[in-house]
Amino acid sequence: MKQYRVAIVGATGAVGAEMLQVLESRNFPISELIPLASERSVGKTIVFRGESIPVQLLSKGAFRGVDIGLFSAGASRSLEFGPVANEAGAVVIDNSSAFRMVPQVPLVVPEVNSHVLGTHSGIVANPNCAAIILCMAVAPLRQLAEIRRLVVSTYQSTSGAGAMAMQELLDQTAGYLAGNEPTPAVFKWPIAFNLFSHNTKILPNGYNDEENKVMAETRKILEMPHLKITATCVRVSTLRAHCESINVEFDRVVEEEQVRVAIRNFPGVRLQDDRDNNHFPMPREAAFQDDVFVGRIRRDLGFPEAIDMFVSGDQLRKGAALNAVQIAEQLFVAGS
Amino acid sequence: MKQYRVAIVGATGAVGAEMLQVLESRNFPISELIPLASERSVGKTIVFRGESIPVQLLSKGAFRGVDIGLFSAGASRSLEFGPVANEAGAVVIDNSSAFRMVPQVPLVVPEVNSHVLGTHSGIVANPNCAAIILCMAVAPLRQLAEIRRLVVSTYQSTSGAGAMAMQELLDQTAGYLAGNEPTPAVFKWPIAFNLFSHNTKILPNGYNDEENKVMAETRKILEMPHLKITATCVRVSTLRAHCESINVEFDRVVEEEQVRVAIRNFPGVRLQDDRDNNHFPMPREAAFQDDVFVGRIRRDLGFPEAIDMFVSGDQLRKGAALNAVQIAEQLFVAGS
Repeated sequence: MKQYRVAIVGATGAVGAEMLQVLESRNFPISELIPLASERSVGKTIVFRGESIPVQLLSKGAFRGVDIGLFSAGASRSLEFGPVANEAGAVVIDNSSAFRMVPQVPLVVPEVNSHVLGTHSGIVANPNCAAIILCMAVAPLRQLAEIRRLVVSTYQSTSGAGAMAMQELLDQTAGYLAGNEPTPAVFKWPIAFNLFSHNTKILPNGYNDEENKVMAETRKILEMPHLKITATCVRVSTLRAHCESINVEFDRVVEEEQVRVAIRNFPGVRLQDDRDNNHFPMPREAAFQDDVFVGRIRRDLGFPEAIDMFVSGDQLRKGAALNAVQIAEQLFVAGS
Repeated sequence: MKQYRVAIVGATGAVGAEMLQVLESRNFPISELIPLASERSVGKTIVFRGESIPVQLLSKGAFRGVDIGLFSAGASRSLEFGPVANEAGAVVIDNSSAFRMVPQVPLVVPEVNSHVLGTHSGIVANPNCAAIILCMAVAPLRQLAEIRRLVVSTYQSTSGAGAMAMQELLDQTAGYLAGNEPTPAVFKWPIAFNLFSHNTKILPNGYNDEENKVMAETRKILEMPHLKITATCVRVSTLRAHCESINVEFDRVVEEEQVRVAIRNFPGVRLQDDRDNNHFPMPREAAFQDDVFVGRIRRDLGFPEAIDMFVSGDQLRKGAALNAVQIAEQLFVAGS
């Protein structure tokens, strides 16, 4: 099997670290792994397949001979170095928002729309974490009836804001228990025993940046440009799995059992809908799992053409690193 | 001013303790305060207006001479002792679910429907905490247009499950930080750095008990028996303020600014909708406050006749104790 030279841009971040683990556990065919990061992280090493590899400076020369660049270092780095990597001959799989809404750039959740991968011209975008998890739960239902509208409220973990945000949750919580006043740093507001509207700028349409991403990217991934969707994105004090409460309106009545069967048969989602034991998706169980968990499936009592669901998925894994590696597998490994 | 003999049933619980504070801080005219509780709590004392008062056994004889019984000791205690208190001449304000949906029993949020108080025949029901907070946010909007449908997802604090649940959150979190596996007791699932579908039984309609309460009680309080409503109730790792993400569908387009004005002018709600500073309702700020905070007001981009809001209110205060004391004030103090 052909082996590839893979660069991880942002190798020391929360998503970068998860990418290393996912590449290793899935035996991605790698001849050389090149961890890249900013000045601040040069001198560190990462461990891959038991081997210590020094982190190299993210620079224009760093992509020579690279086949695949897995980018997760923010939109400005992607804008600057994505085209550089392309010129050096690498395909870029980009976890930032830089290229997601560019019409020619495929925005891919492999289980949902891998058929658009063939159209790429060097860059494939990995969607927003909350959008991936939403699409994984909703895509299986498209076969049942036409989806008219989604009303989504999220419960998003601190991992979505990076490793330092996760640490802030832990440190601030320990401080609270010791009687200290919290001193927020990564987040504007205290996160210990709290929750708040997602920590992104409110745009003129009244939605924050995260909500706009979820709405626009979901329409693009599902190829439903006219889908009615509203999202309320909320940060909660969990570590690494997002949850979403989703109301799905169809154009006709759909039975709960049809929804369960559709979820059960879709790759990458797991039905967890045990009413007798009150056992439904939750962050502590979805964390470190590849699958997106779907449950609380029920007919909307007020609106018979709608169903409600509650979903949980690991933000770092399917919400970011796993999905990116799956895209690489589709592009370079599938059928080879 | 007339003074009243007030019995607190469940005086040592989370809501009972809050009732004592609210009665004291609002200078409710009390000639004698009688704390009642089960066997387990007899021997304890509570402090009211600087005075230590021994907790008495909740028994049939305990209501002699009582004018007002504030009940918060669960539905079975209310069913057993509510009528006893009535026979002894007391008016019962009941925080349990025992009588809420009895058609002749007024279910009251004073700012919303105090006009139904006059119809009581000894018992007034205090609504479910999440229903109170929802009604406080939605009632101001009824004047703007006809409300057709509500889609609600909650973020409910541990206080709603009692003082021991709050302690479980704190203890389990400290344990987690020390590296211990959680051993859930009050809740079925770990609550530290987690969230889960509300810890009440799923009924045959697929909704849990809490969701059914929120939906049925909201219809009764708002006097909108045909209101379309769906609720997803979720327990999160916060201490004492609930949050709710609410999508409100009207029968016509309503402007965001109309919603803001309506919220601003309604007693007991506070507009907190500062887009520039990303400052919106959150549990840490709503806790220990009487007002219900309302923000994130915006036109639903997918459905122009709908608006989204995010709300936070103290579960123990407006969600329980304050609302009960306000009912007592309406019945016994207002206009006197």
